Amino acid sequence: MGLPVVGMVGGGQLSRMTHQAGIALGLSLKVLADATHDSAAQVSGGVSVGTHTSLADLSAFAAGCEVVTFDHEHVPGELIRALEEAGHTVFPGSAALLHAQDKLVMRDRLAALGAPVPAYRPVSTADELADFAEEHGWPVVLKAATGGYDGKGVWVVPDLAAAEPVLASGVRLLVEEAVPLRRELAAVVARSPYGQAAAWPVVETVQQDGICVEVVAPAPDLPGDVATRAQELALDLAQELGVVGVLAVELFETEDGIVVNELAMRPHNSGHWTIEGARTSQFEQHLRAVLDYPLGATTLTAPCVVMANLLGGEGDPDLDRRMHLLFGRDPALKVHLYGKEVRPGRKIGHVTALGDDLAETRERARLGAHYLRTGTWLPS
Amino acid sequence: MGLPVVGMVGGGQLSRMTHQAGIALGLSLKVLADATHDSAAQVSGGVSVGTHTSLADLSAFAAGCEVVTFDHEHVPGELIRALEEAGHTVFPGSAALLHAQDKLVMRDRLAALGAPVPAYRPVSTADELADFAEEHGWPVVLKAATGGYDGKGVWVVPDLAAAEPVLASGVRLLVEEAVPLRRELAAVVARSPYGQAAAWPVVETVQQDGICVEVVAPAPDLPGDVATRAQELALDLAQELGVVGVLAVELFETEDGIVVNELAMRPHNSGHWTIEGARTSQFEQHLRAVLDYPLGATTLTAPCVVMANLLGGEGDPDLDRRMHLLFGRDPALKVHLYGKEVRPGRKIGHVTALGDDLAETRERARLGAHYLRTGTWLPS
Repeated sequence: MGLPVVGMVGGGQLSRMTHQAGIALGLSLKVLADATHDSAAQVSGGVSVGTHTSLADLSAFAAGCEVVTFDHEHVPGELIRALEEAGHTVFPGSAALLHAQDKLVMRDRLAALGAPVPAYRPVSTADELADFAEEHGWPVVLKAATGGYDGKGVWVVPDLAAAEPVLASGVRLLVEEAVPLRRELAAVVARSPYGQAAAWPVVETVQQDGICVEVVAPAPDLPGDVATRAQELALDLAQELGVVGVLAVELFETEDGIVVNELAMRPHNSGHWTIEGARTSQFEQHLRAVLDYPLGATTLTAPCVVMANLLGGEGDPDLDRRMHLLFGRDPALKVHLYGKEVRPGRKIGHVTALGDDLAETRERARLGAHYLRTGTWLPS
Repeated sequence: MGLPVVGMVGGGQLSRMTHQAGIALGLSLKVLADATHDSAAQVSGGVSVGTHTSLADLSAFAAGCEVVTFDHEHVPGELIRALEEAGHTVFPGSAALLHAQDKLVMRDRLAALGAPVPAYRPVSTADELADFAEEHGWPVVLKAATGGYDGKGVWVVPDLAAAEPVLASGVRLLVEEAVPLRRELAAVVARSPYGQAAAWPVVETVQQDGICVEVVAPAPDLPGDVATRAQELALDLAQELGVVGVLAVELFETEDGIVVNELAMRPHNSGHWTIEGARTSQFEQHLRAVLDYPLGATTLTAPCVVMANLLGGEGDPDLDRRMHLLFGRDPALKVHLYGKEVRPGRKIGHVTALGDDLAETRERARLGAHYLRTGTWLPS
């Protein structure tokens, strides 16, 4: 058939759902996973077990692929560069991906591009932090420049004393002003090597304890000019940074507009709703982008789409029984389980509700996710 | 996670798309395939290579599954009964599946149930055939009682001379009147062991040379009472025959109503449009049914959904390049490739178009399938 071989580094749920999307395109995603029981490794026929911090493992994996892409940002930049120098096609490339790996590099680049960012500064001492807080007020947000995810590596500190253990950790840090946000948004786009790009509608993301729990598409009551500005910003950043694949731009909405919080260059939790909610899912689009196929239509398939993450609760959830009862109550709810061992707070799946009425659609997603997590129904 | 292990006998595209649907449900479909390059075997991590006519292979496969189901009707009934007698859960069961395996058994049972069927009779001699034709007129339709698919095992014969090679073949045969049909329809439903059932809208199926080339959902201009009658008929048959899983009832629409042509008890070509076109696809529904989960909503996601089969043409289609150009022309068309070696006339994929306008949606599906097959655009 002559279809290209695509490999994804990382065996998590993003890789799992990318494989699922690739099946339709005639592909069988190759996966470099830590272990054969990883989420994606369970469902793919092309699994290599190896470590994403080993050049030998990465090189052996890349040798069997025509395009290599990622389900996370944790492959060290120098290893990606080594793959590129060895002639492998890697999307997103190391030069782009660096902006999703290093928050300080990202802040500097975005500031230079004139993108809206919070006040920030690299810090390593209490004095530097005190200076920044004097200018911008407490609390401030300390961030590890590299390695954070799902709220890890981010500390909201009310005063210098609270910051000291973080400062003493030896982690490379930046400090940011605590942006007075109304809510969080995400603008998710994709870009191909050819330079074509496509944007999904801007969504609202709801976080608890630093973890996304809910995504509402399109973002309710978002003024049209703000939505357009957010999409243009994400498309501009994709081009300026040379992103290939999906780019998720996490945003704060403030009184004055939008501010960039984080970037991710891969399918992203804020785009899971697209599996059923858009004509082209972010997983299919990521594959189309890295294959340099023309991108797919991003139109919605329903007026409201709400995704709720399924976080692990306490004890054995007996998901088989709960799926049974959930489907009995809501035959139109779409459930995605990742095949991951349940641990409290861990993302083990998500549910998506589609509908005409926002309140009702949101309620269905919340009820479903809460029931799968706890085995009890919230009062509706 | 405690989710049941489902195994599907057969490594074709139905198994491939069932695996794709199962990924969302937290499953990893096990597949009994003839070879590791089979369509489903390429994309599943749980492949056993074996023969569906070998009890040893089937038993070994079933031992690793909690539920066994099928992507075709070719497993001999006595082997399915042996699995059942050994205590394996097999859906659909041998008693139901017999009606999709043996056209004479099916005709007798449907006639006994009062379902609309063409006039038919078992035949083995020229005299019997001549008697039948005297009563019902030439041409008549000869069918192999077992083993046919995609037009194979069906002969429309204009006279006795044309029938003689078929009669001489030693195949067990039945003869049917040539029904004066307006068009072909299909009513696809699913039923769970609990007895719950769900129907998708009745579709029109367009055949060429005995192979389905196009499915239009819902069937255009179908009177409401005929649609209801067709759905009720399929639901009644599912219950009467004890079907578990998807049941596709292929129908002839005539001046006087509907007549049952064939039955299939598995996801079926006439239901491929449900992947994007219905809230629950036939593949997810088949899994929900065999797991005895409550069935999913069957509502449409667009006013018109048209699926066109992609049949193999002459020579190497260079699908990578054609996908590229097709996606450039129609970014909303959904393409499904099965990873099968291209042979003329072989089903190697399908495309689905969704829209508001029937003529336009149909045109998009036709153009897309024709382009992928031939590398040329039909005039539009």
